[in-house]
Amino acid sequence: MKIKTSIVGVSGYTGLELVKLLIHHPVFELNAVYASENHQELSALHCCLKDVIKLPVSEANLTQIAQESELVFLALPHQKAMEYVKGLYDKGVKIVDLSADYRLSLEKYEENYCTHLDKENLKNAVYGLPEYNRSQVAKTSLVANPGCYPTASLLAILPFIPYLDLNHTLYIDAKSGVSGAGKKLAQTSHFVTINENLFAYSPINHRHSSEINEQLKKLGKENLKALFVPHLIPLTRGMLVSVYARLKEPIEALEILQTKYNNEPFVRVRRTCSQIKNVAGTHFCDIFAKTDGLDLFITSSIDNLLRGASSQALANANLMFGLEESLGLPQIAYAP
Amino acid sequence: MKIKTSIVGVSGYTGLELVKLLIHHPVFELNAVYASENHQELSALHCCLKDVIKLPVSEANLTQIAQESELVFLALPHQKAMEYVKGLYDKGVKIVDLSADYRLSLEKYEENYCTHLDKENLKNAVYGLPEYNRSQVAKTSLVANPGCYPTASLLAILPFIPYLDLNHTLYIDAKSGVSGAGKKLAQTSHFVTINENLFAYSPINHRHSSEINEQLKKLGKENLKALFVPHLIPLTRGMLVSVYARLKEPIEALEILQTKYNNEPFVRVRRTCSQIKNVAGTHFCDIFAKTDGLDLFITSSIDNLLRGASSQALANANLMFGLEESLGLPQIAYAP
Amino acid sequence: MKIKTSIVGVSGYTGLELVKLLIHHPVFELNAVYASENHQELSALHCCLKDVIKLPVSEANLTQIAQESELVFLALPHQKAMEYVKGLYDKGVKIVDLSADYRLSLEKYEENYCTHLDKENLKNAVYGLPEYNRSQVAKTSLVANPGCYPTASLLAILPFIPYLDLNHTLYIDAKSGVSGAGKKLAQTSHFVTINENLFAYSPINHRHSSEINEQLKKLGKENLKALFVPHLIPLTRGMLVSVYARLKEPIEALEILQTKYNNEPFVRVRRTCSQIKNVAGTHFCDIFAKTDGLDLFITSSIDNLLRGASSQALANANLMFGLEESLGLPQIAYAP
Amino acid sequence: MKIKTSIVGVSGYTGLELVKLLIHHPVFELNAVYASENHQELSALHCCLKDVIKLPVSEANLTQIAQESELVFLALPHQKAMEYVKGLYDKGVKIVDLSADYRLSLEKYEENYCTHLDKENLKNAVYGLPEYNRSQVAKTSLVANPGCYPTASLLAILPFIPYLDLNHTLYIDAKSGVSGAGKKLAQTSHFVTINENLFAYSPINHRHSSEINEQLKKLGKENLKALFVPHLIPLTRGMLVSVYARLKEPIEALEILQTKYNNEPFVRVRRTCSQIKNVAGTHFCDIFAKTDGLDLFITSSIDNLLRGASSQALANANLMFGLEESLGLPQIAYAP
Repeated sequence: MKIKTSIVGVSGYTGLELVKLLIHHPVFELNAVYASENHQELSALHCCLKDVIKLPVSEANLTQIAQESELVFLALPHQKAMEYVKGLYDKGVKIVDLSADYRLSLEKYEENYCTHLDKENLKNAVYGLPEYNRSQVAKTSLVANPGCYPTASLLAILPFIPYLDLNHTLYIDAKSGVSGAGKKLAQTSHFVTINENLFAYSPINHRHSSEINEQLKKLGKENLKALFVPHLIPLTRGMLVSVYARLKEPIEALEILQTKYNNEPFVRVRRTCSQIKNVAGTHFCDIFAKTDGLDLFITSSIDNLLRGASSQALANANLMFGLEESLGLPQIAYAP
Repeated sequence: MKIKTSIVGVSGYTGLELVKLLIHHPVFELNAVYASENHQELSALHCCLKDVIKLPVSEANLTQIAQESELVFLALPHQKAMEYVKGLYDKGVKIVDLSADYRLSLEKYEENYCTHLDKENLKNAVYGLPEYNRSQVAKTSLVANPGCYPTASLLAILPFIPYLDLNHTLYIDAKSGVSGAGKKLAQTSHFVTINENLFAYSPINHRHSSEINEQLKKLGKENLKALFVPHLIPLTRGMLVSVYARLKEPIEALEILQTKYNNEPFVRVRRTCSQIKNVAGTHFCDIFAKTDGLDLFITSSIDNLLRGASSQALANANLMFGLEESLGLPQIAYAP
Repeated sequence: MKIKTSIVGVSGYTGLELVKLLIHHPVFELNAVYASENHQELSALHCCLKDVIKLPVSEANLTQIAQESELVFLALPHQKAMEYVKGLYDKGVKIVDLSADYRLSLEKYEENYCTHLDKENLKNAVYGLPEYNRSQVAKTSLVANPGCYPTASLLAILPFIPYLDLNHTLYIDAKSGVSGAGKKLAQTSHFVTINENLFAYSPINHRHSSEINEQLKKLGKENLKALFVPHLIPLTRGMLVSVYARLKEPIEALEILQTKYNNEPFVRVRRTCSQIKNVAGTHFCDIFAKTDGLDLFITSSIDNLLRGASSQALANANLMFGLEESLGLPQIAYAP
Repeated sequence: MKIKTSIVGVSGYTGLELVKLLIHHPVFELNAVYASENHQELSALHCCLKDVIKLPVSEANLTQIAQESELVFLALPHQKAMEYVKGLYDKGVKIVDLSADYRLSLEKYEENYCTHLDKENLKNAVYGLPEYNRSQVAKTSLVANPGCYPTASLLAILPFIPYLDLNHTLYIDAKSGVSGAGKKLAQTSHFVTINENLFAYSPINHRHSSEINEQLKKLGKENLKALFVPHLIPLTRGMLVSVYARLKEPIEALEILQTKYNNEPFVRVRRTCSQIKNVAGTHFCDIFAKTDGLDLFITSSIDNLLRGASSQALANANLMFGLEESLGLPQIAYAP
């Protein structure tokens, strides 16, 4: 069986990662890649793909996409993505949207991003965190692929929700590599700015804060306040999240993680602090936790472009088509 | 006036930084540098010093040091430093000890490090955080120079102590460049290990945790629990500390910082998140703070080898000799 | 068909890369991994392998290796490797030696390394640069896997040998990432030493100089002097070689490269300067060349741990067993 | 004595470095800084300068500059600089131009850059390489401050000119940190592009090639062909140049260097390969050389923003005003 697959928005980093993942996927067949500019051979746009894959980058066209695709990955900026969902949803195409457009409630979306132009489909979208929404993903035609920070944070925090003292704020100190800021030129991602540097940005009111807080309520089923501060770190790919929380009573933190994730092939409970290097290049999320009396420290790491974007999108697509979730998901890290 | 000055332990990074600071100091005259090995010309040990300074590296000898020095900087590992303090304290030499040997109470010291062999002088030592202990430093002959993590943490937290809800733990998420791990070879500081990587280490029970907690009580005069987790980041020098705390009532965080540090020439209150690059190469500590309801986020940055070690040692030495505190302290960052 | 495969020397970076390559290889079945220490689960030694592969690291034992392996990769330091070759060669095992022990003539070997203890097998070894020794590799039981610098240099230079003015020296300015220096602790690979730094080392008389010069004569069939200077660069993996040479007459450099490598799936002729990022993570060698009158500039890039070591070893093993050379060779770069 | 000093073009990296150098200069008093935009407090433009210097960034105005300055540093892009020289040269102001506008012959300038609009002053400009043009610099009112690549290359090569076989091309393999590409946003200096990467660019026909070749002829007084290939390396500041050349007869390379530079306080002849880390932050140029028969290898390193731009500009300004050349030149490296 082959499933015809397209990527809309192939110019950026997550688009490239999707291509790399799909090249050897046994079922999803990458037939077309689209971008608003750069209409050239794909390997001219992403030089590392020379002699690896031949595909032209085309101007996206809704009719053509609908006709030629059973599965579409949208690797577009927010606001742009909803135009495609709106045009494709009723055409029988399954869609994984890597943007933020369908991750939030309408209220929080418009507060953080812009006016939503496809309110109708908001309710049809499933938040694609496989470990927590597997069965819903399997039944939907529209997956809102989680953000990178929320992925690393939620996988770390959710197992502990029943044990948390909800009168205390939970603090998330997150650190992301520069690829998370995208390929667009900006003073922040200029090598000279961030090399030998480190800083927090958008503290407290980063857009991913709403995503994390809404999902903690939805998936965790408790009213909890999480305060989120992201930092930019001088490395290309990978993300590490450190969480500080207050417990109701003493717990065995590692046991709780192990019980929760025992059967999850892509969450590894670590016995020492998780590292970015062990997950970069893979779909794994590594988690470690430790308590000090009633204080809980959790640290988790993911590859921001894979588990935080493209490989999670692939896992969701696998589920949507009834395939084995792990099909084509990368396990082998770039380390050393 | 010239004051005869020695450095014991010149092989490491903080020893080198001391040399660099003293070369142009108008009063302290660097007469001798000592190390347990590497007995060669100083510029052979630290190649960047070729044609800049000529001094032989000698085997340390208590009698000689006492005779030829009015001021001694000890840039030694803990346990080693106390041997020198014990031998020099009564000889009329003023000592700045950059190790941990006199920073803690006896109890906490022995819990975290080893048996203390110079209990007597523990009580004579002054904790050398100039902004908070200026007058005591001016009167002592023995300064316990603060650790890098405690320096960045205490300068960030102390102004807010009166406003904190002491029933909540305060969380310190600290990030340090690799020079903080010292020059000694270790798998952790191998380039391949830490480049493109990031991880927490010694979470909760790092030795600096006791130093921070003891000083929060001493200088902050309140009973407060701080939970401290350091992370290693892929850059050479600099440190950033992010603090999460709970307030008793809403505050104007930046105003509190400005009021506190208005007259402090080496603490800069920032209106946006502090960055490592703005302080690397200087004695500055940059601090920013922001609240969200009753939650407080503070972020501060220092050069771990300067404000976190050698330039703070120099500030303390200036005070001990009645000189202007800022004499010879570096203000000009390495940026870009 | 499955071929029983072992790795001797699994502790280092090239050992790890071999494991990563073999995990998904369709024919070579990794049955055993050996090391002189670290006798624990393989995923405890290389943490990124947790939940990816289960194998114990064992003490190497010649009899056992011979009994249980049809193919052995030796990822050992020089001198150590020849002990194993000596003990295994006659046992019907095919061997790929990643060390330098069988790459050089006896004379040059002993000049550069140490006394050779297995002179006999020196003549049996084939230098495993597939593009130039494919048929010989297919017939041998012992491959001397080329060094990383020689691989990048020879692939760049050999096509141009007929056009070179042999009265002029050819200059090779090579730049290698720090993983090339191995996992062993050394001041040179301390993060603080090499981060924000760059320097040449062992200029002119690096050991790989002899390997390059001998192979230029053997494979290039001309008497040519190449002067080789390696540099260490602040990145983990990848290598770039820049070559400067004198021509007998004007040539079309890119055409010569294209003609030579047209049918080579793992050599890509580039139309702009080759980059490390396009090859890191792959078996590709990217080459670009340009002339200025009679002066020729060539630049080539490889992943030092893959094409410069482990994936080249795998290519050779594929050839030795009559498999398709490209089986299991990585094509998809780590970029971005 | 105080000399009124201005910087035109203070937004970029070399402008910032000039400010940093002038803050503590005993004679040159920085009165005004100009830029085409960013008209705010200087410390808002360069955040590291907060509490270090107070000066407004103003719109440049020829009349005002001429009235209020005895010395002007032009840290502008090429083509922009000549407008200011044209307007200021006759007003009795001494000018150090850090751009390329007066470095080349008219012919080579227009070949490499653009039409020259101030041909008149081309002949008045002195090429400001102090070690070779000291007395001319002292007498001029217009210094063409050398490029970074030419500075490192010429200081390395010039001592050997009498010994070179001029029938052979001399090859310069240069490596520069990313700050050399300037603050302007470009895909090349995006962190994700250059981190963990390395590549040659503009091989053979980089603009600095003409500057090097012209000065080799002018200062070296011989007809010599130098082929120049620059590479971009993943570090912020510093530059290393490796030179390959052919000798007429065997020489003692280090002795030649030592004889030449014995009395030069800012050229250090090294006994091992020069390193970027030993010079970053300083005005030093470190040089090492080694021969192999008739082949010569030279390697030199400088801080591209200091010796390759701003501190060299300051050295030239010192000479133009009859001050000690070394006044205010930085000697103390950023190392570790």
